[in-house]
Parts: sequence; structure tokens; C-alpha cells
Amino acid sequence: MTQTQSSALYGPVAEDLILVEDLLESVKRVELAPLRLMLDHALAPRGKRLRPALVLLAGSFGDYNLNRLVPLGTAIELLHTASLVHDDVVDGAESRRGRPTANAVFDNALTVLLGDFMFANAAEMVTRTGSLPVTRLFALALMKMTSGELDQDAAAFDVARDVQHYLWRIGGKTAALFGHASQGGALLAQCTEGQVEALRSYGYNLGMAFQIVDDILDFTGDEAEMGKPAGGDLIEGTITLPALFYLDSAPRENPVRRFLSADGEREGYLPDALAAVVESDAIGRAQGMAQEFVDRALEGLSALEASDARHTLEELSGYVLTRRS
Amino acid sequence: MTQTQSSALYGPVAEDLILVEDLLESVKRVELAPLRLMLDHALAPRGKRLRPALVLLAGSFGDYNLNRLVPLGTAIELLHTASLVHDDVVDGAESRRGRPTANAVFDNALTVLLGDFMFANAAEMVTRTGSLPVTRLFALALMKMTSGELDQDAAAFDVARDVQHYLWRIGGKTAALFGHASQGGALLAQCTEGQVEALRSYGYNLGMAFQIVDDILDFTGDEAEMGKPAGGDLIEGTITLPALFYLDSAPRENPVRRFLSADGEREGYLPDALAAVVESDAIGRAQGMAQEFVDRALEGLSALEASDARHTLEELSGYVLTRRS
Repeated sequence: MTQTQSSALYGPVAEDLILVEDLLESVKRVELAPLRLMLDHALAPRGKRLRPALVLLAGSFGDYNLNRLVPLGTAIELLHTASLVHDDVVDGAESRRGRPTANAVFDNALTVLLGDFMFANAAEMVTRTGSLPVTRLFALALMKMTSGELDQDAAAFDVARDVQHYLWRIGGKTAALFGHASQGGALLAQCTEGQVEALRSYGYNLGMAFQIVDDILDFTGDEAEMGKPAGGDLIEGTITLPALFYLDSAPRENPVRRFLSADGEREGYLPDALAAVVESDAIGRAQGMAQEFVDRALEGLSALEASDARHTLEELSGYVLTRRS
Repeated sequence: MTQTQSSALYGPVAEDLILVEDLLESVKRVELAPLRLMLDHALAPRGKRLRPALVLLAGSFGDYNLNRLVPLGTAIELLHTASLVHDDVVDGAESRRGRPTANAVFDNALTVLLGDFMFANAAEMVTRTGSLPVTRLFALALMKMTSGELDQDAAAFDVARDVQHYLWRIGGKTAALFGHASQGGALLAQCTEGQVEALRSYGYNLGMAFQIVDDILDFTGDEAEMGKPAGGDLIEGTITLPALFYLDSAPRENPVRRFLSADGEREGYLPDALAAVVESDAIGRAQGMAQEFVDRALEGLSALEASDARHTLEELSGYVLTRRS
């Protein structure tokens, strides 16, 4: 993302995000050469830094102390990246954001340890906030994330799961860390209890919408824009909201079920399965649910005084809904 | 380990270790069924609980507050177990302590996530100590552990490494967590700075001796007592102290080098390589170095007042040297 795009999205905190970038850069400076090489690879793709932006924006509602907020933003981005590194090992993914994954370049064994090092580094980083409660919430968010990931893997190809189960899973996998970013930022800024809760709720619900849109894009997204081919979730057996809505109203015999229940070589069934979902009302229904979560996120904000930061958070929820990658 | 063995080894804190056992038991109570199953498997083998014992023994030199010491002991045991779970994935190990590994029972993907969950749980557990400094040291110890593991994997089969490099690696892989156990226990008990440093030094040096003995047992140990066949390190390409001492004084053409540099099928060369090390003076030299670290550990203790706990720590160092599994 360019500086201009960042300013447009993150308003008052866009410039301070460079401090997160610098701290992430410092993480790469380790003595052990193979580790340095791997960290360089894992931390190279400059993502949107949405989670660190949430930390700083939430911190803007109180005592905006960058000495505490920047380490939290960095810790959360590290944690997020570490979990992607392990996810790619778990899924055997070959590319992400148009680049080869760490496990594709190095091997699975070293990549597991790379992720562990990054988790440890994230934990060390969060203690630099000086706050034990924030450190504790950080560990709890990681427990939820991992539970969500584990559930996704354990429930793969199981068509008996429902929307409730899906929402529980993405709540852990994605929304918990979004919620922690905004809650943690508010706590570090010594916001009032009401502000902390409003910001936590905003972050959590934004995270829910974010993941639903991610799951929609896996059906409708453009490979060039996404940096990965469509249909990855179905290939992994991950039954996301669009597939669930589709299965809910499709006849018992349908292309998605045929794909999921195929023995062995199921790839030939993929194009029909994707087309069936995209042509049904499932995408629209999933978009509707993402909108509902954005509405809840905005509801949280309404309790906060008007400010540049609040305006930016409002705009951000629109971006999350309309983004294309 | 039976209660009698535990009492003999851990003296005044043996009974309180049951509280660590209870807290570890509580960790298994998660809602997600597949996770519960995996935690049950990973936490089932009742190890020696040496690291939690170190926490409690160190805590005995100050304010012996079990509400703080038991969570630290539990967190460290969880961290240790999580790292074994990931090591077994990394090494593709089939059995440990005579039981199938988690990755052998479940699959690699789920086992990576199981380890992640346990790391997160360990981080959550250490925050229950109420101490940010101890939490921070815990994260730093994990960073050192992972660096040591990474280095071991990256340097596999590389005969150009030396004893200095080996000591650096086991310092990270093993001794850092031993050092953190005794240092953390002392910090939580509000010991004086001198006591904290004496206990940290004891734990660190004990950990060095512990790992050297582990590496010796991988050559000399009895499969039935160890729960795994001998020679596992060489098979992984991990060149430990006995192999280093052997290579140091053997002629250039020797069975160990032949094994390490074999292309492809090297298993046939293993028996000769093991025999060569065992029949040389390398084992004796490695035992001598383990003794040196125990001496340094005891030196640390000499600064502390005589007590049951100090006596137990002294005895423990003898056990670490003479253990057979």
C-alpha cells in the first residue's frame, strides 16, 4: 500500500504507522543467519496493516502514547503474520499475496519453527506495552485464534455444520484479534470503560465483516488482484458462509455437495461448484450478513464523541465491505 | 514418576507439585472436542516435572506464594510440552517416551495448531503470576528456545560446527528455560538480586548438564528405559557433544563422517557410527563437561543459605548426571 492510500484509509494515524513498520523492521535483525533470511521473507510483503491501524485509532480516544501503542500494533501484526506462516504450512499453500509462501521456499520443518519464533517475538513485543492486562488479553486472543483454526481444519469437508458454527469459528480465527487490537489500544490509552467496550465491539464486529468478505472474495475475487486463485477454501474443504447459504437452499444433489463428497480427485468438480455458488443468491445473502456486522460495528462507535479518529473508523467499515483484495 | 520417587527428588516441594498437575489437568478442559482429544494425548505422559520443581524450589528461598509459583511452573511445563509437540512434527518422530507422538496419531497440520494452542495457553498461564517482568522473561526464553531449535535444524549434517556452537545451541534449546524456571521462581518470591542471580545461574548450568547427558544417552541409553531407540540424533543429522569430541580426535576417514556424508540410504552406516563413538573417549569427555556445568551450578548455590531447598537442589544436580532416562 502506498503512503497516499494509507493516508486515505487511516487518516490521523497514517503517518505514525511508519513507527510500526520500523519496529517490524528491527525484528528482522537477529544474529542467526537462516532465521534472518526467513524473517526477511515472512515480513517482506507490506500488507494493509489494518490491525496496527486499529490499535492507533482506538488509542486516539484517550492518552495517545506511541511508546505503548506502537509495540502493541507491532505485536499484533507479528502475531497475525506468524499465524499466516503456520496456516500456510497446515494448508500446504504454495503462494500468498502473489508470492511463494515460506514453506514453499524453505521447508515445512523450518517454517514451523519460524512461526514459533514469531509468536515468541510477538509475546515479547506485547510486554513492551508495560501492561499485564493487555498482555493477558493478547494471549487469550491467540488461544481463540488457534481454536478457530483448529476447528476449521477438524471440520473440513463436513457439510453437517451450520451458520452458527461458522460464526463461532471466524469469531475466533479473525474477529478476536481485531477486537483485541481496538480494545488493547483503548486500554493502553486509559480510555473509560464505556469507550473500551465500544471500541472492542467495533473491532470485533469489523473483524467478523472482514472475514465474511474474505470468504466471499474466495468465490468472486479476481486472481490477479487477490494474488491467489479463487476456490482455495473449497479445495481445503473449508465450508464458508457463501457455501453454507448455497447448501441451505440448493437441492440435495448439487455441484457443491458433489465436489465436497467426491472420493480422491475432486478438482474436476471445482468449476461447477464455484459457478453454482456465484450464480445463486448465496453471495448476496453473505454480503447482507457482512453488512449486518458492519452495522453493529458502527453502533458501537455511536457511543463515542465525534472526532477524526471516529470518522476514520466509520470510513474503514465501508472499505472493509467494498474491498476487492 | 511415583509419589515416592518425586519426594526423594524434590524434597520439600514434592507435594505442592500436585497443584501443578491439577492446573495442567484444567488446561485439558476445552469445549472444542478435537482439541480436547489432542490435549489429552499431549499432556498425558507424566514426565518428571523437573522444570516446575525448579520454580517451586527457587521460590522456597523467599516468599513462597503458591498462587504465583504454581501458574509459572505450569506455564513452563506447558511451554516445554508444546515445544516437544512441534519438535516431533519437525523431526517426523513416531514415538516419544515409548508412546506414539501427536503427529503420528493425528496429522501434522492439526499437530502444528495443537502446539500453537499450547504456546498461547502457556502465555496466558504465565500472566496469572501477576508479574510483567516474569512474563517478559518467559517470552525471551521462548525466543531463545526456538532459535536453538532452528539452528539445530539448519545446521543438520554440517560437520564444520564446533563445541562452542553446540554450547550456544543447547543454551538456547534447553538451558534458557531451566534458567528462567529458577530465576522466575526467585523473582516471584521477591528474593534479593543476589539470590535471583544465584538461582538463575544454577538453573541455566543445570540445564546445560541436563542436555549434555541427554545427548550422551542418545548414544549409550537403553531403548527400553529411554522409550526410543538410540542414535536418533545422528539420524536427524544433529551433531551433539559426543559426536563432536569423537570427530575432533578421529582420523579423517571414520564411521561417523561416513554416516553423515552418505548420499541417500545412510541407515546401514549407523551401527558402526554409534559403536565408534561409544568405544572412544568421547563419552567420557562429554561426561566431564556435564560435570563441569554441574560444578558451576553448585557454585551458584554456595551463595545461598543452607536449607532443605538448597540441599534438594544439590542432590538434583547429582541426579541429572546419573539419570538413565
